Amino acid sequence: MKERSPVLIVGSLAFDDLEMPYGSFKDVVGGAATYSSIAASLLAPVRLVGIIGQDFEQKTLDILAARGVDLAGVERAGGKTFRWAGRYSSDLVTRETLDTQLNVFADFRPKIPEAYRRSPFVLLGNIHPALQVEVLDQVERPEIVVADTMNFWISGERAALGEMLRRVDLLVINDEEARQLAGCHNLRRAATAIRALGPRWLIVKRGEHGALLFDDLGMFFVPAYPLEDVKDPTGAGDSFAGGLVGYLASHGHVSERLLRRAMFFASAMGSFCVEDVGPRRLLEVRKEDLRRRLDAFVHMIDYGGDLPFAEVAERP
Amino acid sequence: MKERSPVLIVGSLAFDDLEMPYGSFKDVVGGAATYSSIAASLLAPVRLVGIIGQDFEQKTLDILAARGVDLAGVERAGGKTFRWAGRYSSDLVTRETLDTQLNVFADFRPKIPEAYRRSPFVLLGNIHPALQVEVLDQVERPEIVVADTMNFWISGERAALGEMLRRVDLLVINDEEARQLAGCHNLRRAATAIRALGPRWLIVKRGEHGALLFDDLGMFFVPAYPLEDVKDPTGAGDSFAGGLVGYLASHGHVSERLLRRAMFFASAMGSFCVEDVGPRRLLEVRKEDLRRRLDAFVHMIDYGGDLPFAEVAERP
Repeated sequence: MKERSPVLIVGSLAFDDLEMPYGSFKDVVGGAATYSSIAASLLAPVRLVGIIGQDFEQKTLDILAARGVDLAGVERAGGKTFRWAGRYSSDLVTRETLDTQLNVFADFRPKIPEAYRRSPFVLLGNIHPALQVEVLDQVERPEIVVADTMNFWISGERAALGEMLRRVDLLVINDEEARQLAGCHNLRRAATAIRALGPRWLIVKRGEHGALLFDDLGMFFVPAYPLEDVKDPTGAGDSFAGGLVGYLASHGHVSERLLRRAMFFASAMGSFCVEDVGPRRLLEVRKEDLRRRLDAFVHMIDYGGDLPFAEVAERP
Repeated sequence: MKERSPVLIVGSLAFDDLEMPYGSFKDVVGGAATYSSIAASLLAPVRLVGIIGQDFEQKTLDILAARGVDLAGVERAGGKTFRWAGRYSSDLVTRETLDTQLNVFADFRPKIPEAYRRSPFVLLGNIHPALQVEVLDQVERPEIVVADTMNFWISGERAALGEMLRRVDLLVINDEEARQLAGCHNLRRAATAIRALGPRWLIVKRGEHGALLFDDLGMFFVPAYPLEDVKDPTGAGDSFAGGLVGYLASHGHVSERLLRRAMFFASAMGSFCVEDVGPRRLLEVRKEDLRRRLDAFVHMIDYGGDLPFAEVAERP
């Protein structure tokens, strides 16, 4: 069996204050890199680069370390950890930001430890695109560079974003971000425009509606898993990205076929994430849970063999 | 080869005035039964029951007849045809009704011709649920009864709707209607509640996000086909229902497996419908177009064989 390759994940570690329709939750461990690392580490070793304050608990770091997350790249600075507060709508589909305190994250300059520089799989979480580029300047050419970004950088940091996009293999963003980045509503046209900016592959996440991969072979679609109980969508997209890269790293290489299969692992991780507040559920997921969720996915799209094209043609 | 069974379709024939972001279109041939009949008739013979006014052109009827749509059940009354006017949002995702003129449709009481009474496949378009029940009173027990409904009847005609639901095998509605009918946001819970009201099968249409089938085997999902050009979503849901029933009728029976395969034909018909204003594109579709669109669908969900569950389990 091929050795699993390590995944380098760079991004935010945070505390979230969440106002959900059914209650409020303070000081929930969050951050894109946290969610991505938890998801990826079920499938491959993770190397984490980020910054935390004095208030970030050692026991959280211990939980990550126990999952195979290397924390040599996590810098503890004086001051407080990045903090985000948000309120979700009654259907949990939309949310508004109530407060953002960058704290130690304001001065974050990712320093990639020497031992991380040959990381074949790199996931650049949603941070300033100039910092994403700084990370790429510090690593040897990886097998694949996956990146996320957000509306804030799309509208305000277009030049830096352009430089980042030219150096990224796979961009993973949501549908609104794709539309904003491309300046057009139609997702297929938007995908073509975005891929022309650099990324060979583009994945457009659509929340409860699944995700679309665009590449030279065309489009590939994976549904989201419809759950009876959705508790907290925070981090679902980051869990998706973590599951995706973790799966690829578990194979040690990238192909169009593996990317398609990785989409299921990604969507499964996203579906676990939303089942409880914060990363609670994600931390509990075992291989057997993942296998069962993947079974459920396949059941949901199993149309019983080849589609009956022949019968379409044979009838008058 | 099994003989294709005829499909009985009951519902509206209409004229639509459409205000699209790119222009206005007057007197577009529309109506749920029209769209459903056009879609279904590519796959099976159709028997149409509806009402038109003096202004409905014979050449439109001739086009339907040439496709194998039996028009013996289409009544021409004195007065004007049902007319709907609507305006679409710039992204074509939402629309508002500008005007509704029931005209001859106001007094529509479906009369099922003697020759139609043994129709094994019945599609009840979105009309008053009491009229849908009247149709069922006039036919011998069909193989399957498929029905649509809408928010207006869900909020205002609950008793009649309940009676209809008890006599329907498959309900095909959109997600907002499902949520309204069940009184809950979560689609899986809503589906369970709706199926408890009668329908053995439930399909929830989600527009550009595809459709979900709920049955005793669980859930089945079919994506919508992402198009580069969407011109007019009017009638897409009706084309979906028509394609679905037409496919089942082309097999002459119903099973969970056939229903899953029918979802692709349904989604393909919906995707053709939106490619031009009114039913224009749908009328052009040939078997070869359908085969190509189905190929594209399968390409979009082909993950390259069995999902690698084994590898999930085999790794530590």
